[in-house]
Parts: sequence; C-alpha cells; structure tokens
Amino acid sequence: MVTIQKPSIPKGTRDFGPMEMIKRRYIFDTIKTVFEKYGFLPLETPSMENLSTLLGKYGEEGDKLLFKVLNSGDFLKDLSQKDLEEGNSAAAGVKISEKGLRYDLTVPFARYVVQHQNEIVFPFKRYQVQPVWRADRPQKGRYREFYQCDVDVVGSDSLLNEVELIQIISDVFAAFKVSVTLKLNNRKILYGISESIGHADKMTDITVAIDKLDKIGLENVNAELESKGLDSDAINRLQPILTLQGDNETKLECIKSMISGSETGMKGIEEVETILSVVQALNIPLQPELDLSLARGLNYYTGAIFEVKANDFAIGSISGGGRYDDLTGIFGLKGVSGVGVSFGADRIYDVLTGLNLFPEDTNITTKVLFVNFGGKEQIAALKLLSQVRNAGIAAEIYPESVKMKKQMDYANKRSIPYVVLIGENELISGQATVKEMKKGEQKTIPFEELIDFFA
Amino acid sequence: MVTIQKPSIPKGTRDFGPMEMIKRRYIFDTIKTVFEKYGFLPLETPSMENLSTLLGKYGEEGDKLLFKVLNSGDFLKDLSQKDLEEGNSAAAGVKISEKGLRYDLTVPFARYVVQHQNEIVFPFKRYQVQPVWRADRPQKGRYREFYQCDVDVVGSDSLLNEVELIQIISDVFAAFKVSVTLKLNNRKILYGISESIGHADKMTDITVAIDKLDKIGLENVNAELESKGLDSDAINRLQPILTLQGDNETKLECIKSMISGSETGMKGIEEVETILSVVQALNIPLQPELDLSLARGLNYYTGAIFEVKANDFAIGSISGGGRYDDLTGIFGLKGVSGVGVSFGADRIYDVLTGLNLFPEDTNITTKVLFVNFGGKEQIAALKLLSQVRNAGIAAEIYPESVKMKKQMDYANKRSIPYVVLIGENELISGQATVKEMKKGEQKTIPFEELIDFFA
Repeated sequence: MVTIQKPSIPKGTRDFGPMEMIKRRYIFDTIKTVFEKYGFLPLETPSMENLSTLLGKYGEEGDKLLFKVLNSGDFLKDLSQKDLEEGNSAAAGVKISEKGLRYDLTVPFARYVVQHQNEIVFPFKRYQVQPVWRADRPQKGRYREFYQCDVDVVGSDSLLNEVELIQIISDVFAAFKVSVTLKLNNRKILYGISESIGHADKMTDITVAIDKLDKIGLENVNAELESKGLDSDAINRLQPILTLQGDNETKLECIKSMISGSETGMKGIEEVETILSVVQALNIPLQPELDLSLARGLNYYTGAIFEVKANDFAIGSISGGGRYDDLTGIFGLKGVSGVGVSFGADRIYDVLTGLNLFPEDTNITTKVLFVNFGGKEQIAALKLLSQVRNAGIAAEIYPESVKMKKQMDYANKRSIPYVVLIGENELISGQATVKEMKKGEQKTIPFEELIDFFA
Repeated sequence: MVTIQKPSIPKGTRDFGPMEMIKRRYIFDTIKTVFEKYGFLPLETPSMENLSTLLGKYGEEGDKLLFKVLNSGDFLKDLSQKDLEEGNSAAAGVKISEKGLRYDLTVPFARYVVQHQNEIVFPFKRYQVQPVWRADRPQKGRYREFYQCDVDVVGSDSLLNEVELIQIISDVFAAFKVSVTLKLNNRKILYGISESIGHADKMTDITVAIDKLDKIGLENVNAELESKGLDSDAINRLQPILTLQGDNETKLECIKSMISGSETGMKGIEEVETILSVVQALNIPLQPELDLSLARGLNYYTGAIFEVKANDFAIGSISGGGRYDDLTGIFGLKGVSGVGVSFGADRIYDVLTGLNLFPEDTNITTKVLFVNFGGKEQIAALKLLSQVRNAGIAAEIYPESVKMKKQMDYANKRSIPYVVLIGENELISGQATVKEMKKGEQKTIPFEELIDFFA
C-alpha cells in the first residue's frame, strides 16, 4: 500500500484540461488541414529512440538535455565503482541507459527516411505533429514536454518546394486570422558575405553575430565580430549589410554588387530571385521580406531560411525553417536534400489567446442537456436524447434526477447552450420546453421537431 | 562527429508510416466522434509522471514494467557502492530516477481529478487517447509503446452511466461495421457467489480462476480452485454458475436463487437488472449478454464489468471496463465513484484489416497531381493548383519537370486518382487533359470547370 501524497506532475510538464484541449485541437487541425491540402502525408515515430540515434546530433548542449530512459532489469550490472567516483554522468549514462526520449522531429524523421528508403516514394512530403522532450530549465513559455508541428519535403532540390512552404505559411496564418511577417534569407548569401569580406572560414561566427542584431543592436554585434577575430576592415565592409533598408529589389541589387565575386553567394541570390518571382506570379497573399540579418541558429541549413513573426503580438518567432542539403548523411544516405518548416503550437496558442482569435465554438462542447426528472420522464428523455445524438448533435442527460438548480448549474459551468425539460406536462403535451441559456429564453418545441431545432 | 550506423528503433516500438497513420486516424476519429456525441471532454496528461504517482498502483509486476527516466545532471551522486554490490535495481532506481513514463491512462486520470478537483465540474465525463509505455517482453500484438482510448465518468453513481457506455460501445462498433458480443457481469455478484459458497475471503482467487474458464476449461478451473484451498463442497456448489446456460433472464433467476443469502450479491443482481431494463427500453442495437464467468483481471472494479469481442475475427477482447468505487482514494480524495471503458486501438486495427473493413478512401490522400512541364506551362499549372487547393481539394504538382513516366509513377505509387496535364496545346486551348488513373480514361476539361470536376 502506498501512503497518500499530494498529487503533482514533474516540473516543466502540463496537464491539458478539456478547454485547453479543444483550443489546441483547433490549432493542430487547422495546420494539418492545410498540410494535407498540399499533399503532405502524416508520420509518427516512437517516443523513444536508441541513444545512438540521438547522441551527437544536437551538439554537446543537446546531449545534456536528452531525457534518458533507464534500461529495464538490472541496469547497474555494468556500473563500476570508478563510474561512481568520477560521477561521470555521460559515460555511466550509456551503461545504464540505451534509449532516450525524442528531442525533436527532424532527427527521427531522418532516421525513418534512411531506414525505410526502399518503401518511400520520393519526393517524400511528410508532416509530423508529436511531442518532444528536453531537460531544459523550465521557465515562462519553455516546457520540458511540448508539441512540434513539422512539415518537410525530402528528395527534391526544386525551389517550388520552398514556394509551397511559403504558401502553406500564408494559408495557415490566414486561417488563424493572424497578421504575420515572413522573413526570407539564404545561407549561401550569408556564406557569400563572409567570403567577400575575406572571412569564409568565420561564416558561423558571423552568422551567429548577425542573428543577434534585433536583440543586441549594431554596436554589440560589431563588438562580438571583433571578439571573434574579424579585422576592422572586414567589419566595416559588413556594415552596409547590417544596416540595409528598402524593398527586396533594392536589397538584392545592393548585395549583388557586394558579393558578385562569390559564386556560392550569387547562387544564393539566384535562388532568392527565383522564389520571389514565382511567389509574385502566384500572388500569394503573404509576400516574403528579404532579411539579410536572418540567420537561424541551426547549422544544418544550407539554402533558403524562413522565419515568421506575428505583427500585432510581441513573442518570438512562431514558425521557421529552411533547406538542408544533407539531412540523412549522418545515417549513411547521402545526397538527399530537404526543406521544411516548423510551427510553434504553444506560441501560436499564446498569440490566439492574446489577440482573442479563438473561434466562439472552441469553448462549447455539448450542445444540449436533457434535465433528468427520473421515472417515465427519464425514459422519454433518454429516447429523445438517442435521436438527437444519432443526428450527430452532442447531447447529454444529467445522470441523476437531482434538484433542478444543480442540473442547471452543471449546464452553466459546462457552458451548454440549450437545456431541454421533459416533465409531466411536456410528456402529456408531447412538447419539450427548451431553454436557451444565454438569452434565458424558453421555447416550446414538439418532440418530433427537436432535431431540426438543434441542427 | 558520430560514426555512421544502420538506423533502427528500440524493440517493441513502431514507426507509423502514412498509410498506417491514415487508417489509425480513422479509428481514433471514429471513436472520438462517438465520445463527443455523448458529451465527453478530451484530456491529456504528461507522458512523464512522478514515480511516486505511479509506483505501487499496478502491483509488483507493474512496478517492474515501468519505464523510468534518468534524473538529469549528476544522477549518480546518491548511489552507493552498496547499491552496486546488491545490484538492487528497485532501491537504486529511485535514487537515480524520479520520473517514469505513463503506464496506463487511469492512474494519471485519478491524479488529475484529485489535483484539479476544485476546477472540475462533476460528474466529470472525460476521454483520453494517448500512448502508454510498458517494459513488457515484446511479442506479436504486444508493444512497449501503444495507444489507449479511455472514456470515463467520475462523480456519479447513477447506472445511467453504465447504460451510456453500452450505447457508446454499440455506436463505435456499428460505425466500424464490426459485429461484436458485449458481455456484462457485476463484481458484487461474484462476491455474492463467493459468499454463498462460504468463501467470501477467497473472492479474488475464485474470480481469477473463473476468469480462465474460456481459456483452460472447466476441469482446470476446478483444479485451480482446489489448489487455492476450496473444499469440494464449495466447488460443487460453484458448478451451476460455471456451466450456466440460457438467456439473461434464465441466468438471473438461477443465480438469484443461489445467492439470495448475500446482500451484496443481490445488490449486484439489482444493478444488472436495472441496466438491462433501460438498455431494452431504449432498444440499443447491441444488447449485453450476462456472463457470470466474466471477471476481468483488474481488482479495482467494484460493480458492473464489460468485455467486448469481435464475432467474426479471432482475437482477444477489443474493449472492456467497469465500475470502480474508489479510484481517487489512493490520492486522498475519498468516495468518488467512476465507470469507464477502454478501446484497444491496435486490436481494432487488426480486426478491420482482417475483415477488410477500412473505408476505400483510407488509402487515398492527394486527389489530384498536376504534371510539371516547366516554363510557362508550370506557372499556369501552379495558378490552377492554387485554385483547386483553395476549394479544399488536396492537390500537388510534381516539383520537377522530369520525364512524364517518372511523374506518372509517382501518381501511381501514391495512388493519386487524377492526373492533370497542362502542356502547350492545353495552354492554348484553355482546356486541361485529365487522366483518371484507375480507368486509364482521359477527359478534356476547361480550366474554369476543373474545380467542379474534382469537387
């Protein structure tokens, strides 16, 4: 027997009660509906992956943030006194744990593509909506278990895939009625910049520094660049990029003249121009904004990169992604290029809440409550209830014939819009009394017309 | 850098590719639709629970089968040399792990109800569809990660809840077009039987033995009862129950005469009679069959118990559940009665596959593929594609203007029913060539009529 404890859940995790669930489902369903309209197929991978699949894919920091699952049975058998003295978690960890919880959806997807390469029809358009786990320090808006919504195409270099993802982003946020800005850049351009200021070797440092422009401002970016060993000449030549203004055409012209010497850079320009011209030809409602300071942390991106921000609500990026040329190489399948974006469900939830954009009906569930008067009235109510439900209308009867007030309280707290009363008189007249809870109005509806009334 | 490995997943876990996903979603959506028609609300709890919440709830065996999650940071600090020598996994386990993966949906639900008792509107009708994890030895049909679909009402003793669950079971399998048998029994009757043969103390042994009647047959059941210390007289008096035949009324009469001395037993009879009479009054298509040999392993059931089997496919029970009077007591909330059933998604999947009952459209996803001819034909195709998608029709364009054959192969392998060709001539005539892949027929459809054609 276990002693009674005050129940709680692990820090950084959440229960999702009915009202949150209904709002979250609205978010996931809206996104999935768009994905499927574009021919993307659903995929699910196991929550646990072999640690050999996960380790080394997210950098040292990431390895530390993996949740490891204890081997079943006697997991101590391989553990030595030395392990204890060293307290070397990493080394000992492998001995007592061979599995870890999924850290993102990208690496399991890459693993899946390689493992199933012979069954998969390429180009493979897949979407995946599943939780991921990270042993991060929990804080506002950061959780240890959260959902990711990823959509990717692998096995095609065509820039039409980038265009399609822009259309998807446009459709998704149009469906949410959220006004957003879509920023577009290209890793090849960033390489071209590094190259043309004579620091191709420092592309990552430069990228990382540029990425912080919004947050820390120009001076600090320059200071960081200097600290990374860029000479003042290089830093000076970088300034026009950092301070670049104007529309996409203007920016492209300026950057062209600057990086014309870099073949890779010019390839990046060409890619951006192609994407923008198709987006324009199709006049997609959401036109991307070229932002040369957009870098995105993750280093596996090799081409286009995207980032989406809400215009009327202050929160980080709510969607983002890009092109990666060698996702599956790490698992032995070379030359499979992919491009994808990810939607941040939790942040989108906060935006829709903050801007009050959830549809009305995301807080109504049951539409009709039949009051329970017991006896033959109860049987009559149960029969009508079955008919209403068979018509596809969500309906309930209060399970006990308790006081009217208690049953009405239930309807109110559950925000059930209609209450049906079938008492003695209603049973005789064959007409139900229907109460509209919001207006407080009462109507008399013949039993046989109830379904049409609620439909 | 990590060395290249042949990718694999942990034993007992599964990848769900697109075609499985679409079939599984059909199962989950069908079940959820019924749940919501009856006014049940969705709930999700975290994948990880504190071990203090999980341990001791599933018996010693269950504790062993919990997947434990390694504490982050230096999880060895509290581990002593003694722990190593003893190799005592249980004791050491607690030191290096405070969290475990959800083992079922019932205990987390109980934890949720107690933790949120002040926000919850009772009676609380909730459903939950989430994966659970068990470190069982994997074998055919038994996995280490699998979904459960639970539906429960807590906070109401009314037998109308039992009736409603019977309606739900009836509706769910009618929706699947699967013919099933629903067996009904009541734990109070089983107690009454034990009592009336003078072995109230041995109710569990008797229940467990009776439960095996289908599997091991009458002799072996009797042998087991004897081994548990029942005298031959008691076993003899049990025989009429074990061999009881006939319709529900006959069975009830026989059992009544036998256990009339047991107050609890007669209460159970009364419950069964009430449930059966309402079920009959509503003439629910699926009428339950009273089966006094039905016991169900789990010991927390205290009233009605249910079990569902498919009539035309040999597999274990595909749904089951019952009434439990003290679910939340273990977490300090007394006197909350509940009743619920669980649907076995994996077995239902096997039944629908075996009987070929998945709807046609569960293997079609994208409806239309536009062939990619590049150049201005491509732009024209992209514009029509957007219109088709905006009409809510799932459509794609092949991302590259490669050989016709390759694009047709893609359509075939993806079982896309319609292929649209917009080449030079079509562009001039303003009429698309539409190929129906199944029949191999070709039609000519004016651009402006394409949507109506596919809608």
